[in-house]
Amino acid sequence: MPNLKPGDKKPALTMYEIARLAGVSQSTVSRVLNGNKSVAPDIQANILKIVEELNYRPNMAARGLVSGKTLSVGILTRYMGSPFFSQTLRGMAVGLTGSGYLPIIALGSDLGSEDLDALKLLLERRVDGLILQVGWRFSDEYLHELAAELPLVVVGQNIPGLEDHCIVVKSFDAAYKATAYLIEKGHTCIAHISGPLFLADGIERRNGYCQALMDHGLEVIPELIVEGDFMEGSGIVATEKLLEQRQKYPFSAIFIANDQMAVSARLALYRRGVAVPGDVSLIGFDDQPDSQYMIPPLTTIRHPAYQMGMLAAQAVLGLLDGKRLYLPDLPLELIVRESVTIRSQ
Amino acid sequence: MPNLKPGDKKPALTMYEIARLAGVSQSTVSRVLNGNKSVAPDIQANILKIVEELNYRPNMAARGLVSGKTLSVGILTRYMGSPFFSQTLRGMAVGLTGSGYLPIIALGSDLGSEDLDALKLLLERRVDGLILQVGWRFSDEYLHELAAELPLVVVGQNIPGLEDHCIVVKSFDAAYKATAYLIEKGHTCIAHISGPLFLADGIERRNGYCQALMDHGLEVIPELIVEGDFMEGSGIVATEKLLEQRQKYPFSAIFIANDQMAVSARLALYRRGVAVPGDVSLIGFDDQPDSQYMIPPLTTIRHPAYQMGMLAAQAVLGLLDGKRLYLPDLPLELIVRESVTIRSQ
Repeated sequence: MPNLKPGDKKPALTMYEIARLAGVSQSTVSRVLNGNKSVAPDIQANILKIVEELNYRPNMAARGLVSGKTLSVGILTRYMGSPFFSQTLRGMAVGLTGSGYLPIIALGSDLGSEDLDALKLLLERRVDGLILQVGWRFSDEYLHELAAELPLVVVGQNIPGLEDHCIVVKSFDAAYKATAYLIEKGHTCIAHISGPLFLADGIERRNGYCQALMDHGLEVIPELIVEGDFMEGSGIVATEKLLEQRQKYPFSAIFIANDQMAVSARLALYRRGVAVPGDVSLIGFDDQPDSQYMIPPLTTIRHPAYQMGMLAAQAVLGLLDGKRLYLPDLPLELIVRESVTIRSQ
Repeated sequence: MPNLKPGDKKPALTMYEIARLAGVSQSTVSRVLNGNKSVAPDIQANILKIVEELNYRPNMAARGLVSGKTLSVGILTRYMGSPFFSQTLRGMAVGLTGSGYLPIIALGSDLGSEDLDALKLLLERRVDGLILQVGWRFSDEYLHELAAELPLVVVGQNIPGLEDHCIVVKSFDAAYKATAYLIEKGHTCIAHISGPLFLADGIERRNGYCQALMDHGLEVIPELIVEGDFMEGSGIVATEKLLEQRQKYPFSAIFIANDQMAVSARLALYRRGVAVPGDVSLIGFDDQPDSQYMIPPLTTIRHPAYQMGMLAAQAVLGLLDGKRLYLPDLPLELIVRESVTIRSQ
């Protein structure tokens, strides 16, 4: 197939136009372009000459009808532009690079039925495979049906019975590890700014925090758990709320359920003259790209967003190839930087 | 058309299957589904009944062959996951929402011909429209050819003769404004960390800085201009380089060509015990989402990335509709926060 070069002057031809020029049927052109050798050599040569000279651009839509493929993978996502979702999306796009498949993106939202409408748009386009970042919007039963219909991968959620289609990480264990690290550094009164407590990620991180406290003989104080929504604004509000209670509960550290809330919590502390980590130690979750540049650099849990996206792309390509991919456990590493100090008595 | 509901048990049917069930040709089914009234009423009713009962899902690939449309807009991008590109991409996705068009994304890169390969993948899929975020990779001549072939919008670059296809902002003016603001605050020795000086954005911001100095009777000192690459790592290296020369050139402020380099420059200053803004004032460019949470919050120029993406989507939809869109000048506002102070003598 001739390459498209920035110098090429000639417009691309459709298969119909090539067939007309060569005086053959479109199916003959199609057979030649697909490498089928059943066409007479002189006709083959003639078609390839026309293609070469006139820079034919294959019509993937038409090919798709013959092969049954659109060479596209649908991605249903939300929160494009937020650090975690952006990194995951990048992983997916990079993971598909070179495969011939391109990502088609549909944007869901919290509003009404937009996730469903967005999914419908993808399915109508007959995407060959599907990656869902908002699996929680659909019933398990429906996700089972989808998985029976086309290669499906769900990121960030475990669907019972579809475990090998799901890319998940062990949030509970990582939250436990983060909290235990604070305890190890001498902190005994530790607050928590949680994610939304209707989402698995919010619940598991909160539970990991509670379990670590209990396993180390520390009391879980409900007033020291303030619910946020994973967005920056809520990190400020939650920190203010915690500071109001600091007389009664003199916490020396906060485990914050994601870095987006941690950077803004840090600003709220700065505004109130509370030193980090001198007065209050902070530990986040995600290791978003900017966290290493926080003042001071944030100690956090590395959530392998990019790798999750890559793995999702590879899993879909595997399923398209009829393979069941082995999905490795992605590690959630504690990244020790400078926002946690040993508690001074 | 029946809605896809999460409770639906029945698999979707292809047009072929409906035609077989109804005992008519696929083109008859197609005509009915497209609202063409030329089909006999009883046949219409029968087809619609089958569709209703068996939840037919339209095959957009097949429809595309008839209508000549794929209902997709190709986006050629890079640096997915970086704050600026992520926001732009989000703007595009949101801007297309509700139009029926979905974005297909192809990822270019600095390596070899990947931008070209990625573009080729999009064109092969017969995208109805195209948004380029990496226009600089292609010759103006080639971009003119592309624009003649399909609705084309270029973000972040002005192509001579294609001005009404280009979404650009006035980087020079904004850089001038940022530098003049520092001068107004009493700074007379101002350093600059530039973007790559082979990109229009890098050059224009550097030139705006130089012009502001000259217009205010200040000398442009080449040693105080250090080239970065718009990435965080280079902000640290450039700041170190500037600090090494501070004995000789005692700068009290730095204008940094983007916020990604500003947040890391700020960390480099923290590491060396240089107070911001007490010792050195900082002003960035972009107003990326996290800049408001920097310690101290960053004074910067707001680059309307999200709006640029929205506008690009609207412009493509306009062109698809045969309209030439009026592209407003997007303002680049100075966002005054806390990283600039009045220079103490």
